[in-house]
Amino acid sequence: MNLKDYIASIPDYPEKGVIFRDISPLMANGEAYREATKQIVDYAKEKRIDMVVGPEARGFIVGCPVAYELGVGFAPVRKKGKLPRETIEVTYDLEYGTDTLTLHKDAITPGQRVLICDDLLATGGTIKATVELIESLGGIVVGCAFLIELMDLHGRDKIKDYEIVTLMEY
Amino acid sequence: MNLKDYIASIPDYPEKGVIFRDISPLMANGEAYREATKQIVDYAKEKRIDMVVGPEARGFIVGCPVAYELGVGFAPVRKKGKLPRETIEVTYDLEYGTDTLTLHKDAITPGQRVLICDDLLATGGTIKATVELIESLGGIVVGCAFLIELMDLHGRDKIKDYEIVTLMEY
Repeated sequence: MNLKDYIASIPDYPEKGVIFRDISPLMANGEAYREATKQIVDYAKEKRIDMVVGPEARGFIVGCPVAYELGVGFAPVRKKGKLPRETIEVTYDLEYGTDTLTLHKDAITPGQRVLICDDLLATGGTIKATVELIESLGGIVVGCAFLIELMDLHGRDKIKDYEIVTLMEY
Repeated sequence: MNLKDYIASIPDYPEKGVIFRDISPLMANGEAYREATKQIVDYAKEKRIDMVVGPEARGFIVGCPVAYELGVGFAPVRKKGKLPRETIEVTYDLEYGTDTLTLHKDAITPGQRVLICDDLLATGGTIKATVELIESLGGIVVGCAFLIELMDLHGRDKIKDYEIVTLMEY
């Protein structure tokens, strides 16, 4: 099975000159979704993962079945104001302006081994902020798994001290 | 295992007089997350489900491992402007104002048997809109599964023609 057969490429979205890689056909296909999940699980299963963390909202779609299959918990990273209990937060720069991501303060306990999952490694800003949130709670980022890596954007340079696994490259 | 042991109750959130039921401790615990998923899967597995649909974002956390375990696809219902390809939409009333939910036009094919998953059945507005989206694409809503039902809000009255399964009641 070639997972790329299940990625839709949308020219000029969200802005002119950008090709958006849409994972929704992959998730909509039970076999492809299962295969992608299993590839991440195969990578992760020897790493003694305690927790999967994913940024909202597509990181939930990628990370939740991985957590389920590994038999571990899942903690969501969300935009500010979305989590109901006490949080920590990290603000990071976007092309225009800033964004703030939050994580429940009790989501990770010190020493827990964490796998980060998201759909796409682009510029790496979201993932770097996610790493900072996990580490500020004493978690150990064991690896970062993505369905897709956009090579031109060099996102892996922002998280070069961490293991990265990507299932598809563009 | 009593799943209620893993629900955090937050008084006066998001507004005074409301007790918010937070599923994040449940998802953070691998055994509890697995048990909740399995209870929904046990309900669904004899129903020949073709597709799981969940509204953003906690519906992804509940529905994605269910889809994975059933071996079927997952389609996200998202707020307007979040899905990159051609969508259909439904606008529904909130206490103050309205909200619009969207689904990719090709997310469901006519005759597909769909299970809706979400964390919480409250007033039922989101779920009713989700049912309308699925049915307007020709999908058959086979059941609606929730971790939690808030009994005082009578959400099930809005979807009384459909099978409903809830794991916890408050």
